[in-house]
Amino acid sequence: MNPLQAVFNIAEICAQHGITDVILSPGSRSAPLTLAFARHPAYRGRLRVVPDERAAAFIGLGIAQATRRTVVLVCTSGTAGLNYAPAVAEAFFQQLPLLVLTADRPPEWIDQLDGQTIRQRDLYGAHAKGTFDFPADTSHADAKWHAERLINEAINLTQTFPAGPVQVNVPLREPFYPKPDEEMGYEQAVKIIRDDHSNTILPPAEILDLRRQLRDAGRVLVVAGQMPENPTLTAALYEFAEARQVPVVADTIVNLGDVPAVRRHDVFLASLSKEDKLALRPDLLITFGQSLISKALKLFLRDAAPAQHWHLQPAGEVADTFRSLTRIIRVQPAVFFQQLANFDTKDYNRDVNSNPIGATASTLTWQQADAAATQFLGSFFATENQPFNEFAAMRQALAALPDGAALHLANSMAVRYANILGLPEGRQIDVFANRGTSGIDGCNSTAVGAALAQPARPVVLLTGDVAFFYDRNAFWHNYPTPNLRVVLFNNHGGGIFRLIDGPRQQPELDEFFETHQALTAENLCRDFQLRYLPVSSFEELAAALPVFFAAESGAAVLEIFTDSKTNAAFFEDYRKAVKQAFS
Amino acid sequence: MNPLQAVFNIAEICAQHGITDVILSPGSRSAPLTLAFARHPAYRGRLRVVPDERAAAFIGLGIAQATRRTVVLVCTSGTAGLNYAPAVAEAFFQQLPLLVLTADRPPEWIDQLDGQTIRQRDLYGAHAKGTFDFPADTSHADAKWHAERLINEAINLTQTFPAGPVQVNVPLREPFYPKPDEEMGYEQAVKIIRDDHSNTILPPAEILDLRRQLRDAGRVLVVAGQMPENPTLTAALYEFAEARQVPVVADTIVNLGDVPAVRRHDVFLASLSKEDKLALRPDLLITFGQSLISKALKLFLRDAAPAQHWHLQPAGEVADTFRSLTRIIRVQPAVFFQQLANFDTKDYNRDVNSNPIGATASTLTWQQADAAATQFLGSFFATENQPFNEFAAMRQALAALPDGAALHLANSMAVRYANILGLPEGRQIDVFANRGTSGIDGCNSTAVGAALAQPARPVVLLTGDVAFFYDRNAFWHNYPTPNLRVVLFNNHGGGIFRLIDGPRQQPELDEFFETHQALTAENLCRDFQLRYLPVSSFEELAAALPVFFAAESGAAVLEIFTDSKTNAAFFEDYRKAVKQAFS
Repeated sequence: MNPLQAVFNIAEICAQHGITDVILSPGSRSAPLTLAFARHPAYRGRLRVVPDERAAAFIGLGIAQATRRTVVLVCTSGTAGLNYAPAVAEAFFQQLPLLVLTADRPPEWIDQLDGQTIRQRDLYGAHAKGTFDFPADTSHADAKWHAERLINEAINLTQTFPAGPVQVNVPLREPFYPKPDEEMGYEQAVKIIRDDHSNTILPPAEILDLRRQLRDAGRVLVVAGQMPENPTLTAALYEFAEARQVPVVADTIVNLGDVPAVRRHDVFLASLSKEDKLALRPDLLITFGQSLISKALKLFLRDAAPAQHWHLQPAGEVADTFRSLTRIIRVQPAVFFQQLANFDTKDYNRDVNSNPIGATASTLTWQQADAAATQFLGSFFATENQPFNEFAAMRQALAALPDGAALHLANSMAVRYANILGLPEGRQIDVFANRGTSGIDGCNSTAVGAALAQPARPVVLLTGDVAFFYDRNAFWHNYPTPNLRVVLFNNHGGGIFRLIDGPRQQPELDEFFETHQALTAENLCRDFQLRYLPVSSFEELAAALPVFFAAESGAAVLEIFTDSKTNAAFFEDYRKAVKQAFS
Repeated sequence: MNPLQAVFNIAEICAQHGITDVILSPGSRSAPLTLAFARHPAYRGRLRVVPDERAAAFIGLGIAQATRRTVVLVCTSGTAGLNYAPAVAEAFFQQLPLLVLTADRPPEWIDQLDGQTIRQRDLYGAHAKGTFDFPADTSHADAKWHAERLINEAINLTQTFPAGPVQVNVPLREPFYPKPDEEMGYEQAVKIIRDDHSNTILPPAEILDLRRQLRDAGRVLVVAGQMPENPTLTAALYEFAEARQVPVVADTIVNLGDVPAVRRHDVFLASLSKEDKLALRPDLLITFGQSLISKALKLFLRDAAPAQHWHLQPAGEVADTFRSLTRIIRVQPAVFFQQLANFDTKDYNRDVNSNPIGATASTLTWQQADAAATQFLGSFFATENQPFNEFAAMRQALAALPDGAALHLANSMAVRYANILGLPEGRQIDVFANRGTSGIDGCNSTAVGAALAQPARPVVLLTGDVAFFYDRNAFWHNYPTPNLRVVLFNNHGGGIFRLIDGPRQQPELDEFFETHQALTAENLCRDFQLRYLPVSSFEELAAALPVFFAAESGAAVLEIFTDSKTNAAFFEDYRKAVKQAFS
C-alpha cells in the first residue's frame, strides 16, 4: 500500500465522524495532510488556508465555538505547531474540540539538525487533553489498525466531556506527493469507533437527600459561569428558579436565554453597605458552567463564605473558585434543575429561608439591587455634557447591536465594560469571549472564525487597540467575512492600567504599563479591504452606527478614538457615583 | 521583609551577572518584575517594552544572537508565555541564552478558573534547558536562599555550553505594587554564584591517536555548521587547513572570517557526474558547529558515507546529520585544530591521501569545483535580457551590502538563494539566520533585536513576503532602528512551493501551497514610519539600492516585486544551466 494511503484515510475518518471544517497553514512536510483534506469532498468550501498559525488556530477555535463541533488544524513541522499553543490552551480551558494534526519528520530524524525539526511529541503538555503518535510506517496490518484506531480515539477525545484540544503528531517520510499519474483515493471501509455520549441522572436517594438539603439550606443562590446557549438547561433553570424563588446571577458571557437573571452585579456589589451585603449572602451556593468575569462577584462570594457550595458538573476537574466548595454533583446542570424544580410546599422551610444567617437591618434582595443598578446606569449616562469616552461609547454601540448577532468581547477592557453595561433586551444576542485563558492574543481571529462559520449572522467584535493590533494577522487570508463588524476602542495603549489602583500610582505607568502605541486601523483596513469608519464624538458615533451595522457595509471597522486620561477620569466619576448610589 | 523585595532582588542578581538587556511585555501580574527591572540602573535604556510576546521573544533572541549574552524576557501570566514558545525553541536549537521570567498566580490559584491562569510550570517542555519554580513565599530564610540561588542557577544554565533558554516561573501574590510612600531598594548583598567556564584540552594520548588516524585516514574534509564569528577558532582552522591541505566547506551562515572555504557547493554538488562526486568523497569527515542549509551537501555526504566522521563538540547531544558519525571529540573545535595543525611530514601519508577510495577518472578537487561555480554564476547572470526575477535581484542586493553589515537571512527562500549566491568578498559581513528551527515566525523581530543591540552597525534583513507579513508585529513598539534595512522579495505568496518538484506538479499548488497573498509593505511602512522604496525592474533596483543603504535613509523597506511564475521559470533555467556546466 502507498504510505500516503494512511494519511488520506485520516481525512476519510474525520469525514465519517462528521467533521467539515479544516484550517491549514502552508508547509512542505504537511503536504500529504494538505492533499488528503483538499481532495476530499467533505471539506469543500470549508477547508481554509491561513498562513499565520497563531491566527489559524484561533480562527479554528472561533469555528468550534460557533458550531460546538470538532475543527481540524493542520500545520507543518517545526515551530508552526508552537504558534498554535495559545489557542490550544484557550481551547483546553474553554473546552472546545480541536483536532491538531502536526506534521513531523519521522522519529529517526529528530534532533539531527534537519530544518524545521523540533521535539513535537506531546507539544502542548498540560494544555492538551491527549496526544497521539501516528505511526511512521503503516505497512504492517497492525500498524494500519493502530493508525486508524488512534485517529478515532483522538476525535472522540476532543468531544467527550469536557471537550478540548487533542494533538496527533504525524511523522511523514518523503515522497510527500503522489506521482503525477497516480490517483490517491479514500478507503471507505476505514475503521470507525463511535463514542456515544449519555446523560447522567441522579439516583433517587441522592434526589431525596438534595431536596432535604435544599429545604433546610436557608437562602439559595445560583451563579452561572460562562456557557453557550443550551435550551434544555435554560428551560430547566427557568423552572427551578421560579418554583423555588431562587435568584440566578450571571455575567454577560453566560447565555441564559429567557431566564430572568441578576446581571448588573458588577455595578452594585462592590459598593453595597455591610448590612446590604449581609442580606444578599447565600447559605447554599449552586454553580455550574465555566469562568466568571466579575471580580466583584468573586470577592463577594469568597467573603460571604456560604455554608455549602454545590457545583454541578458531570465529569472533569472542578475549581473551588470561591473557596467554599463542599459538594460536586456529577450531573448535567439541566438534569439537576429538572429533577429538583418540583417540590411539595412542605419541603420548603420558609422560616429557615427568611433570615437564616444573622441579624441584618437590610431586606435588600438580589432582584432589587439589580433593578436599582439598571436604573442607576440609565440616569448616570443621561447626565448632560459628558466628555466623549470609551465607557459611554461602548454603551452606545451595545444599544445599536443588530438582532441575532454573535457578540464577541475581547479581553481585557471590552469584556469588563460590557459586563458592567449589559446587553440590550430581546435581541437574541449570543455572547462569546475567550475567558478560558483571558488572553488578548486571538480575539480578532476567534471573531473571524465565527464570521466564517455563520455567514448568515452578524458577528460583532468589541475590542481595544492592544488586542486588535496584536492579532492583526487574523485578517491575513483570502476568505471574505462580509458579516463581520469590529468596534475598535482605540485609546492608544493599555488603558486598563490607568483604571487600576496599583499601576496608576506608579511613576512607570506611562512607559511600562500603559505602553503608548500610535497605530490607528486605517492602514490595516486598506490592507485587508475592510470598510473604515473613524469617529471621535458622540455625534459621529451616532451617525456612523447605522451605516456600520447595515448589511450592505460588508466587513468593517468602526474605530472609536478616545483619550486615555479622559476615560480614566470618567470611569472614576462612574465609580464615585456608584458608591454614592449604593452605599 | 516586603515580599516584593525577593522580586527586586532578581533584577539585582541579573545585574551582578552582567545582564543588561530586558524585553518586557505589559501585564498586571508581572508588575513587580516590571518595576524591579524598570527601576534598576543597570538596565537603563536597554529595558524595552514590546506588546506582542511572540515578537518580543524574537527581539530578545536577536539581541542575544548579536551580543552572545543572556537576555531577560518578562511576561505576565496566561498565554503570554506561550507566545514566547517559538522563540524559546529557536533559542534552544540555536543555543542562545534567554532567561524567561513568566509571572504566575501562586500555586493555590492554578486551575481555579481565575483569569489569565494556565499551567505554567515547565511551560516549554523539551525546548528549555531547564525550568525553575520561584518560591511563592520568601519570608523564611531558607526560602530567601532558595529564591536567590535558583536565579543564579538559571542564569548560569542559560550560559553553560550549549547555551539556551531557561524558564523561571514566578508566582506573585497581590499587592503587586509598593505603597506610594514605600521605597523599594535592591539588596547589594544578594547571593551570587559564578560559573566559570573552562577550556577543554585533548590529553596527549588522544592527540597521538588522532594524529595517527589523520595520517592514515586518506582524504580529509572539514564541514562547518552554522556558527558566529570566533577569531580563535578561525585562526586555528586556517592554520590546520593550510598545513594539512584540507578543504573546508561552509554554508553562507558559517562565519569563518578569512578562512578560505568552499562556499559554492550548492551550485555544483547536485549536478556533478558520478566520477566527479567520487573524486570529492572524503574518507574522514570532520565537522563542528550547528546546522547546514545546503540540502545538496547533506545528500552528498549521506551518499558519500565516509569511513569516519568526527564531530567536535565539548558537551551536549550530537546529531548524526550524515548517518556516518563514528567519533565525538569532546573539545572546543579551536583547541582541536590548534592541537592538530602541526605535524611532522612523516605523519602525512601521501599515498593514502592521493586516491584512497577507488578508481575514478576524475581529479576534481573541492577548490576547483568551487572556482568553477563562482565563474559559472558570473557568466550565468551576465546573460543579456533576463526577465526581472527575485534570484537575480537578490544577487544585485547582496552586491550592494554595506561594509560591516550584520546580514539577516530569513527562512525560507532568502537563506537558500543567498547560500547559492554567496556574499561579496572583503566586506566584513556577519551572517545570521534562525536555522535552529528554520521557522519564518520571527525573522523580522530577530533583525529588529539585532538593530537595537548594534545601533552603530547596518543590519540588513533579506526576506520573502510570507515571512515578512507573518512577523509584522516586530515593528510594533516605540524604539527607533535607524540602522535597519529590510529587503523584501514580494512574489505574493509562498513562491518556494513553485520551485520544488512535488507541489508544483499538484493541482492544489495555487490554492493550498503557494497561497497567494495580496499585501504590499506600503501600508505597513506608513504605520511604522519606515521609508518605503518599491521597485519592479533591474533599473529601479539599481537606482534604489544606494538611496536605500545610505545612512541618512533611516529604517527602510526596499520592496522588490517579482512574478512568482517568472521566478520559477528563471530558477529552472538556472538549474538547467548548472546541469549543463557541471555534469
